[in-house]
Amino acid sequence: MSSKATITERLLAGDRTALARLISWAENRDERFPEALSAVYSRVGRGWRVGITGPPGAGKSTLVNEMARLERERERTVGILAVDPSSPFTGGALLGDRIRMEERTLDSGVFIRSMASRGSRGGLAKAAVDACDVMDAFGIDSILLETVGVGQAEYDVLGAVDTVVVVLCPGAGDGVQAMKAGLLEVADVLVVNKSDLPGADRLIADMNEAIHVRFLPDRDWVVPVVPCSAGTGTGVEEVLDAISSHRAHLEQRGLAEVRRAKRLDQIRLVVDGGVSEALWDQRGFAAFADRELVGERTPYEVADSILETVLAGISAAPANGMAPEASGGARP
Amino acid sequence: MSSKATITERLLAGDRTALARLISWAENRDERFPEALSAVYSRVGRGWRVGITGPPGAGKSTLVNEMARLERERERTVGILAVDPSSPFTGGALLGDRIRMEERTLDSGVFIRSMASRGSRGGLAKAAVDACDVMDAFGIDSILLETVGVGQAEYDVLGAVDTVVVVLCPGAGDGVQAMKAGLLEVADVLVVNKSDLPGADRLIADMNEAIHVRFLPDRDWVVPVVPCSAGTGTGVEEVLDAISSHRAHLEQRGLAEVRRAKRLDQIRLVVDGGVSEALWDQRGFAAFADRELVGERTPYEVADSILETVLAGISAAPANGMAPEASGGARP
Repeated sequence: MSSKATITERLLAGDRTALARLISWAENRDERFPEALSAVYSRVGRGWRVGITGPPGAGKSTLVNEMARLERERERTVGILAVDPSSPFTGGALLGDRIRMEERTLDSGVFIRSMASRGSRGGLAKAAVDACDVMDAFGIDSILLETVGVGQAEYDVLGAVDTVVVVLCPGAGDGVQAMKAGLLEVADVLVVNKSDLPGADRLIADMNEAIHVRFLPDRDWVVPVVPCSAGTGTGVEEVLDAISSHRAHLEQRGLAEVRRAKRLDQIRLVVDGGVSEALWDQRGFAAFADRELVGERTPYEVADSILETVLAGISAAPANGMAPEASGGARP
Repeated sequence: MSSKATITERLLAGDRTALARLISWAENRDERFPEALSAVYSRVGRGWRVGITGPPGAGKSTLVNEMARLERERERTVGILAVDPSSPFTGGALLGDRIRMEERTLDSGVFIRSMASRGSRGGLAKAAVDACDVMDAFGIDSILLETVGVGQAEYDVLGAVDTVVVVLCPGAGDGVQAMKAGLLEVADVLVVNKSDLPGADRLIADMNEAIHVRFLPDRDWVVPVVPCSAGTGTGVEEVLDAISSHRAHLEQRGLAEVRRAKRLDQIRLVVDGGVSEALWDQRGFAAFADRELVGERTPYEVADSILETVLAGISAAPANGMAPEASGGARP
């Protein structure tokens, strides 16, 4: 490859440095990124994106590591993206558990990257999805996206993957119990990790019951509960099998439409983030709010008056937008 | 009090039923809420709002319970708001640990309420702040707002309180370590709970070091690390003392300005949520995005074209808004 090759040409030719740089562009919101993504977008969509989430201590990193090992045995390439939305204040990433994964990094069939939160609400989700797109275009078969916790940012990220794996483990205390409800509802596959610990059988039974009580009537996919002991490697194959089943299910249901809906959600996030930035950082609404918040006016009243000002300027969306058919003649 | 008394009159007269109903109005975004809040807003600002957060299993609920008990011994009234942003999908609240607090509910000086996430991003934070305002106007001295986890919604909620208490405990695994960075940065007071467990001394030392390394140069408040064993009641008094010190610090620094800045953040959340709802649910941009997402156009490109359409309509904020001086004559 000539040294004049563009970064996207290098990406498509399998250059890992180009892959790493493009992900940095996505993370840093580099202005060159959108054009680069457009250039490779026709190659996006072949990889399978799996989100792995669960409470701290459930063993997500160990599981991801084992999943990567098995995928490599099956001769599938793996990309791991560890998303740490730990701090909207500094954007600092914590590599933490990632260190353990170093054994994988010597294998050129595995690409590992950590990403921290920054910018507006949609910022992290957008950067994570962009990174997945780039890994996908690069030709990675199995994209594993690990998130910490279950906040809004994580839900945004998980909303963009194909299969969500929720990892629980026995004996992690009431707090974990309290998180289950929210986690259950995003799960496509539920893994009970550390299944050799006391309490695992009970947790598995509880989860099976919860899933049948809550979801059976209105869902065409019954979330499987997969016992697993990632530390010893037991059950990890079954986790991958469950993901494959979910993939087959989505393909049968119409993968293109499912993914399209996720893309539309992503557009909403990006637009909302962009509007917010424009209003507060560029159009002077921060100073306006400051002037309006006087006397005993509640934040409500001020917000309402600003909303009125903002919304007055926004027309309804064009009925036919820039879609090709809009330029056609009158319809019957 | 006559049966014709309005709900806000009843609130100010100490009627707990009115308090409960107004909080429900806030939670359900009842259209009568804004006017009710306006009617009592002059009474808001006397209570002290403490946010309590930390990873699952750290013992937040036990600590809150003990703090409430001590505050009652000091003859201060207490409001507890347990925020469970567990699920943006169903809005279902999990009372869970709250059951343990029942011993407190027989005391008329304690008011307990649980609140779940719903609606747009700002929805939960707005409802939580509204609930605090109502408790404050009711005359509650100490408002304890407990959140689960450290996602975006929780940060939004914590951004509106006066003092943030972060609760950690030893031995909760690497995942907790990974969460520390984000948690440290929101903490005004850091509690190491279960301080009788092995590893507590090390955690306390680590936290003290972390705080001094990270914050001393650029912060005028040095976050105290308070060992505590909420289960036995040991150290809870010191937690309350640390909160009092933080209060004194903010009062010395200028409480009105600090709180004003938080109110402005709140306005931004409400406006952003309102704009998002208007665009996607009312103005037809969801259908527009659907028409625009064709061929190999990336979500980026579509989002950009929508952003352009939206922002074209929004002028800059009026330079002098509706502030009184705007109606004056020309300036020199």
